[in-house]
Amino acid sequence: MKHIAEFNEGEHIREIFLCKGVSSAVTKNGKEYMNVTLLDKTGQIEGKIWEPNDSGIDDFSKQDYVEVTADVNLWNNTKQLNIKRIRVAREGEYDPAEYLPVSPRNNDEMYKELLAVIDSVKDPHYNALLKKFFVEDEALVKRFRNCSAAKTVHHGFVGGLMQHTLGVAGVCDYLSKNYPVLNRDLLITAALCHDIAKTKEFTPFPENDYSDDGQLLGHIVMGSEMVGMAASEIEGFPDIKKTQLQHCILAHHGKYEYGSPKLPSLVEAMALNLADECDSKLEIFTEMFEANSEKKGQWLGNKRFLNDTNVRSTIVPD
Amino acid sequence: MKHIAEFNEGEHIREIFLCKGVSSAVTKNGKEYMNVTLLDKTGQIEGKIWEPNDSGIDDFSKQDYVEVTADVNLWNNTKQLNIKRIRVAREGEYDPAEYLPVSPRNNDEMYKELLAVIDSVKDPHYNALLKKFFVEDEALVKRFRNCSAAKTVHHGFVGGLMQHTLGVAGVCDYLSKNYPVLNRDLLITAALCHDIAKTKEFTPFPENDYSDDGQLLGHIVMGSEMVGMAASEIEGFPDIKKTQLQHCILAHHGKYEYGSPKLPSLVEAMALNLADECDSKLEIFTEMFEANSEKKGQWLGNKRFLNDTNVRSTIVPD
Amino acid sequence: MKHIAEFNEGEHIREIFLCKGVSSAVTKNGKEYMNVTLLDKTGQIEGKIWEPNDSGIDDFSKQDYVEVTADVNLWNNTKQLNIKRIRVAREGEYDPAEYLPVSPRNNDEMYKELLAVIDSVKDPHYNALLKKFFVEDEALVKRFRNCSAAKTVHHGFVGGLMQHTLGVAGVCDYLSKNYPVLNRDLLITAALCHDIAKTKEFTPFPENDYSDDGQLLGHIVMGSEMVGMAASEIEGFPDIKKTQLQHCILAHHGKYEYGSPKLPSLVEAMALNLADECDSKLEIFTEMFEANSEKKGQWLGNKRFLNDTNVRSTIVPD
Amino acid sequence: MKHIAEFNEGEHIREIFLCKGVSSAVTKNGKEYMNVTLLDKTGQIEGKIWEPNDSGIDDFSKQDYVEVTADVNLWNNTKQLNIKRIRVAREGEYDPAEYLPVSPRNNDEMYKELLAVIDSVKDPHYNALLKKFFVEDEALVKRFRNCSAAKTVHHGFVGGLMQHTLGVAGVCDYLSKNYPVLNRDLLITAALCHDIAKTKEFTPFPENDYSDDGQLLGHIVMGSEMVGMAASEIEGFPDIKKTQLQHCILAHHGKYEYGSPKLPSLVEAMALNLADECDSKLEIFTEMFEANSEKKGQWLGNKRFLNDTNVRSTIVPD
Amino acid sequence: MKHIAEFNEGEHIREIFLCKGVSSAVTKNGKEYMNVTLLDKTGQIEGKIWEPNDSGIDDFSKQDYVEVTADVNLWNNTKQLNIKRIRVAREGEYDPAEYLPVSPRNNDEMYKELLAVIDSVKDPHYNALLKKFFVEDEALVKRFRNCSAAKTVHHGFVGGLMQHTLGVAGVCDYLSKNYPVLNRDLLITAALCHDIAKTKEFTPFPENDYSDDGQLLGHIVMGSEMVGMAASEIEGFPDIKKTQLQHCILAHHGKYEYGSPKLPSLVEAMALNLADECDSKLEIFTEMFEANSEKKGQWLGNKRFLNDTNVRSTIVPD
Amino acid sequence: MKHIAEFNEGEHIREIFLCKGVSSAVTKNGKEYMNVTLLDKTGQIEGKIWEPNDSGIDDFSKQDYVEVTADVNLWNNTKQLNIKRIRVAREGEYDPAEYLPVSPRNNDEMYKELLAVIDSVKDPHYNALLKKFFVEDEALVKRFRNCSAAKTVHHGFVGGLMQHTLGVAGVCDYLSKNYPVLNRDLLITAALCHDIAKTKEFTPFPENDYSDDGQLLGHIVMGSEMVGMAASEIEGFPDIKKTQLQHCILAHHGKYEYGSPKLPSLVEAMALNLADECDSKLEIFTEMFEANSEKKGQWLGNKRFLNDTNVRSTIVPD
Repeated sequence: MKHIAEFNEGEHIREIFLCKGVSSAVTKNGKEYMNVTLLDKTGQIEGKIWEPNDSGIDDFSKQDYVEVTADVNLWNNTKQLNIKRIRVAREGEYDPAEYLPVSPRNNDEMYKELLAVIDSVKDPHYNALLKKFFVEDEALVKRFRNCSAAKTVHHGFVGGLMQHTLGVAGVCDYLSKNYPVLNRDLLITAALCHDIAKTKEFTPFPENDYSDDGQLLGHIVMGSEMVGMAASEIEGFPDIKKTQLQHCILAHHGKYEYGSPKLPSLVEAMALNLADECDSKLEIFTEMFEANSEKKGQWLGNKRFLNDTNVRSTIVPD
Repeated sequence: MKHIAEFNEGEHIREIFLCKGVSSAVTKNGKEYMNVTLLDKTGQIEGKIWEPNDSGIDDFSKQDYVEVTADVNLWNNTKQLNIKRIRVAREGEYDPAEYLPVSPRNNDEMYKELLAVIDSVKDPHYNALLKKFFVEDEALVKRFRNCSAAKTVHHGFVGGLMQHTLGVAGVCDYLSKNYPVLNRDLLITAALCHDIAKTKEFTPFPENDYSDDGQLLGHIVMGSEMVGMAASEIEGFPDIKKTQLQHCILAHHGKYEYGSPKLPSLVEAMALNLADECDSKLEIFTEMFEANSEKKGQWLGNKRFLNDTNVRSTIVPD
Repeated sequence: MKHIAEFNEGEHIREIFLCKGVSSAVTKNGKEYMNVTLLDKTGQIEGKIWEPNDSGIDDFSKQDYVEVTADVNLWNNTKQLNIKRIRVAREGEYDPAEYLPVSPRNNDEMYKELLAVIDSVKDPHYNALLKKFFVEDEALVKRFRNCSAAKTVHHGFVGGLMQHTLGVAGVCDYLSKNYPVLNRDLLITAALCHDIAKTKEFTPFPENDYSDDGQLLGHIVMGSEMVGMAASEIEGFPDIKKTQLQHCILAHHGKYEYGSPKLPSLVEAMALNLADECDSKLEIFTEMFEANSEKKGQWLGNKRFLNDTNVRSTIVPD
Repeated sequence: MKHIAEFNEGEHIREIFLCKGVSSAVTKNGKEYMNVTLLDKTGQIEGKIWEPNDSGIDDFSKQDYVEVTADVNLWNNTKQLNIKRIRVAREGEYDPAEYLPVSPRNNDEMYKELLAVIDSVKDPHYNALLKKFFVEDEALVKRFRNCSAAKTVHHGFVGGLMQHTLGVAGVCDYLSKNYPVLNRDLLITAALCHDIAKTKEFTPFPENDYSDDGQLLGHIVMGSEMVGMAASEIEGFPDIKKTQLQHCILAHHGKYEYGSPKLPSLVEAMALNLADECDSKLEIFTEMFEANSEKKGQWLGNKRFLNDTNVRSTIVPD
Repeated sequence: MKHIAEFNEGEHIREIFLCKGVSSAVTKNGKEYMNVTLLDKTGQIEGKIWEPNDSGIDDFSKQDYVEVTADVNLWNNTKQLNIKRIRVAREGEYDPAEYLPVSPRNNDEMYKELLAVIDSVKDPHYNALLKKFFVEDEALVKRFRNCSAAKTVHHGFVGGLMQHTLGVAGVCDYLSKNYPVLNRDLLITAALCHDIAKTKEFTPFPENDYSDDGQLLGHIVMGSEMVGMAASEIEGFPDIKKTQLQHCILAHHGKYEYGSPKLPSLVEAMALNLADECDSKLEIFTEMFEANSEKKGQWLGNKRFLNDTNVRSTIVPD
Repeated sequence: MKHIAEFNEGEHIREIFLCKGVSSAVTKNGKEYMNVTLLDKTGQIEGKIWEPNDSGIDDFSKQDYVEVTADVNLWNNTKQLNIKRIRVAREGEYDPAEYLPVSPRNNDEMYKELLAVIDSVKDPHYNALLKKFFVEDEALVKRFRNCSAAKTVHHGFVGGLMQHTLGVAGVCDYLSKNYPVLNRDLLITAALCHDIAKTKEFTPFPENDYSDDGQLLGHIVMGSEMVGMAASEIEGFPDIKKTQLQHCILAHHGKYEYGSPKLPSLVEAMALNLADECDSKLEIFTEMFEANSEKKGQWLGNKRFLNDTNVRSTIVPD
């Protein structure tokens, strides 16, 4: 694959891009054409389709992966594509990692691990609820697998939400095995669902920004509502199980000022809050050190999400 | 009506009480009998039913209004009723104001006023939603009309929730007429629904205490969920209207530390928060001055819900 | 009227400007001349008076409205006026709205409304005090009518203080009619006086900046002092009425951290604080939406005076 | 002088007391008599005047020092005085220290020291202001010399305000001699006036409680107002000096939450705040250690005015 | 073993007690005797040694376990021991669990587990430091094994400090295995040492109260100092390793207001803080539910160390 | 002395500079040479040593004061030194004030004053401790005398730490003379030692930045540790004196959020905190007014270390 950053004037290319935007326009002479914005992980480039009705020009839309056949021109000192053919690419023809930030962990493997965790939940109602979300609702599964866990703070990449969910569930699993006070089925179910409404709070990649519902309602309340609605559709789901699960989700930020409308009243809600903090803060450090790998052992400045503390990686003397 | 506080030993009485509790017991000799706790607004008294199987002893349960025929005895220096007959009283036979703290405003008149406010909401979706709650759902209407607005802080009496709701809507109406920036239909609808889930947060009178759902979820989140579910059952209710209404409910406490998971992002949410504060704080003062009417012009001590400030009523010199 | 932004080189103009500054200078040849800075709402322009002693050059000073007869020249690529005649303009010859940001409400009408509100205060002492400030003290009336209610946050325009004062009094009037616990005469008097010392906290337009007294003492304390002094000059003004009115002013910001040295101890002080918040916050939204009228329905970013919340106007779907 | 704690039944006494209260009453037989409450520093005792019209019973009232001739009786196991003669005592006949908590420092000496500090202020306006308060206004001088500096926290005794004022002025004097950045005349004047309105905030001994003005306005704002009024009565007192002095008083608590409506903007305001803290906190420790002199070297528990810290006196090993 | 709560008047007993206090006294006749306070886990009892010089009366002191031979008498309606013989008991003759609150985990097993964790630390310097504390310093080992982790909040029993230390190390082990960003040797070493100075902050059982050093310096600073001193005695211990370990200890409370003078700047310090919170909060819940085992599923009231939240255990419906 | 800012191309100079950096390099032709960065208080200049092995080129290193003989050349429009001779200068040949920001007070005089304060401490253990630090440990004395008291906030110059230490000790001396509750020897010793670890927290001038130990441990904890170690090396130093002194150092910032792990529990700790605030805040004002001497009487804007208050110097009217 040749990347956008490597294109030269006069070249003829045939590559797959992610389409970030498309719109119709009209030339001064009244002729219709199309403006297309294409990107890969090295940058983005504008393209023109001067003959939209040509047979090589298939239907496509924003956020499709498209295979483009084009010439590279120069317009006002900027490279531009003159597009001859365009068609939607099929899954498998491209690797999303070439277009968007993606989790370092394999998406399919993470999903398999998720299914295994679900299987370990023995309570029939919680198990049914988890399958309803993560197996039966295919649209949700797709959004969940592609969603980030945050805009920028941590896990801000495709698969980030699933990776974070598994990380939190892992800590919860450790805690429930070592502290018998915890109800494992409730805790694991809450861990898997705690951020599920981030699929609604953020718009899909490549935008990955707050949606209107995200701004006005937030993932905490929407997550509680999703759980409430799903439980009401499961035969015989006990009210008290539903309420306790919703409470864990509502309280999982642990403090009012972080947007939780209730503080943890159940030990599982508190454990979930701690597990969430463990995974997110360790990931913040991990990403920060990776982004500054050349500064090993140096101070990296004050970090907003780490109490405005000046941080640095551990120095290991020889 | 003769009140509990006026009973004398040896009297024979036939009065209607509110039954606060009932339980079965067995005498030392193995004979079954019943303990009943009865109250009116002047106090409460224990009663014994020594012959539970008598024909005059009808079925009844906790929180029923019951007509009791009994003798007043003395047991260990305490008055007690020896109950001969007991039956559930019908609505109309008694005046709840004799048994429970009630709003100074007439319940029927307040409900009429509520319906008039609903009529003034012209938006068809919001109007339909309000009718769904306050007209069509009879069980909800009954709970709403009898509910308090709080356990103790303000409006802690039967009809208190309706009185507070009308007070808030009144301020909102004034504001929307004087500040054109406000969308009146959204604001009035939000005002009428803002505390609707207090019908779930509190158990019914005479208990009037936090329910499990109240403790674990709270009326803010439950209110948003009620609105969400009702809107989903109304044909053609636009998503954006639903989300904006839910936002107003979620943000109406104005601050994270008061349990709002979102701060007001819409001008209507902010106006609702201010109207809510106006009505509740003025009612706190009103109730406090009434409860201390003999201390007019004196200092009443620090009040927790008024910033721990030492307060007093205004002194008007002649 | 032709505005500064429309002047062209070589034109001869005769217009009224607001004089923002004037100073004497001496040419290299020892000849005295004057530099004048003139503005209208479209911008400002420098002028030169080369013959200060000409008969057409009247006395005038900074902040006067002046009628200027001049030629438009070009100096270093910048337009400049060569002033032939200048004289102070009379009230009525010009419309301040052409020179400074002004309230959308008519100044005379607002003042009439203010007088009507004063008439509605029946308590003779409070009524006398209000007349002393708003009728008898002409210098104060003039400053009050021209003052803004803030430097930038809200009502930052000529007439803004009067508009805000009327808005607050309006809410207080509504509250006192609906909540009998309130002493209307005290509350309305406090509403009309609550920001009166903003006439001292801010320097007059066009500067409209904090004065030294504003920085060192603030309008809250100065307002209390003004009320105290005025009351002491009114025959028989009862001490307790004076103290209660001063308390309302001192406590009207509602919290220590907003500069109130006392928290509301009287119900009228608390009502004033709420009414102040209603009018100022609704005005903040109103001005913000007007300034962003092209972004209807979009998010406007975090706003410092609205709890750093991301706000937007309501979206009204069809 | 024989003290109340030493009275025995059957004794005849003639002593001076502070009259804490007096009221008329009527016996079952319709005969009028008087109840009098008398105190000295060892306790208090009730007295009866059975013949209010006797020639030996002079006029007197609450808070007078009275010479009483009486018999000590026993009534219901409690000692009581049967009062035969009573008259108001003259200043000089008694030592207030025998009746009320008083400063360990001599009142006349402190006042002399105060006058010396005033003499050291060379600025003619500030000097005139200080003399107006502390020399010319005899009623104020009397109240000032007898006032406490607080209800209970520190210096809660007769002369406490003067002792505290001198302590603060002493620290200010040290600072102004060692830090040339300070304007000594402004700082010393502010130190002497900073708590002057405590004479209005507290009612006189033996009550020593918050007055209505104290509750509603507070000594900070009243002190600023007193300074403003006094300055306005001094010929040629420059506005800027008045404003700066008022600012120092307004800001001397250093933080909004301690009731200062302005934070220190002048270096003298900040120095005054620090000197005030030095003197008051060291006095808190001094009084606490004296009150617990038997616990030398032990922990004294958490103290509210010392950050809720567990405190103790230094242990000095041999 | 017969417990104090089961003693009856007239019995002759021979049991082992913990001696809580002992003092000499003299009878009215000038005869010397001894007062002894004895306790077991069921209560405490006073004893008298009337013949201190008898051969059966061995030397012993406060906090010894003593075997006592005595008669049970009644004195002023209170049981009392007339002690005939007393001697210090040997370890092994008694089970501390009968005298003091002890950890539910076996002390020897926990210590073995601790040694195994130490062995897993491969860094030679950290390993040497841990052995210096937990193996070589026998006095410290003894104090550490018997110390609680807190006065009352959590782990307030013998062995509590060791149990908490292992719990924290367990979470740290899980995290270091799952988050490669962590330096395991540093983290585990910090986990084992983080509360080591609680052995100095608390006096030994049965007192278990804050020592003077605990009040004045605290376990955080003393722990850092202990690590610093120990490292300085180990040949070739690198400065940077010492500083990083001290930082983890100083920062392990995570916030200034919890007494940490530094916020976590190293990822290991942050992980230690989270692990500490996990173990201590889950233990708080565990102990609270055990203490209220009869209230399963009920609300237990607001808990100070859980954000003043009303908490309860999970209800598991059948 | 000719300063860097005055150098002209072509000049031959021989001056003493502070060497800020030195490194070896190799020309394109493989010839070794040296780059040297030199500074005085007027700026800095690059120098080249083309013949590092010449006899005139002595050994020297970073942070040495060096006498340089060189020609001033122009390279790429920038002045540069072609260095012919270089040698380390001896103390006395140069005045550090020409190279670095220095205290306005003479260093030797301050040190003499320090010794006099030490002599006034009569307690033999505290006196010995002070001599150990400030007389016997010559390396520490040197660092202490050259250290600043802060990076930028106040006393950010050579000698600043000593000047601040004396200022704090001065206030403490005044307080201990006027408030007998204070133990002078403890307080003065604490004052002299309170910031002693700033010698470790900051790297030496000209860098004067946080060291790693400063970032990870801080001067509060390191100061406590230094005192603890020194006391342990003094024969017979009582534990309680050591602990109390360490407590004063740990608590001297007065609040958790300023990095004190303990709040003042001893009156001397509280006095030290107040004295520290007096000296540092007055110095902040002093330096701020000096840096803005041309703005006398103007507002200087909000200052972060003065509560974000807008400050200005006192206006002294004539």
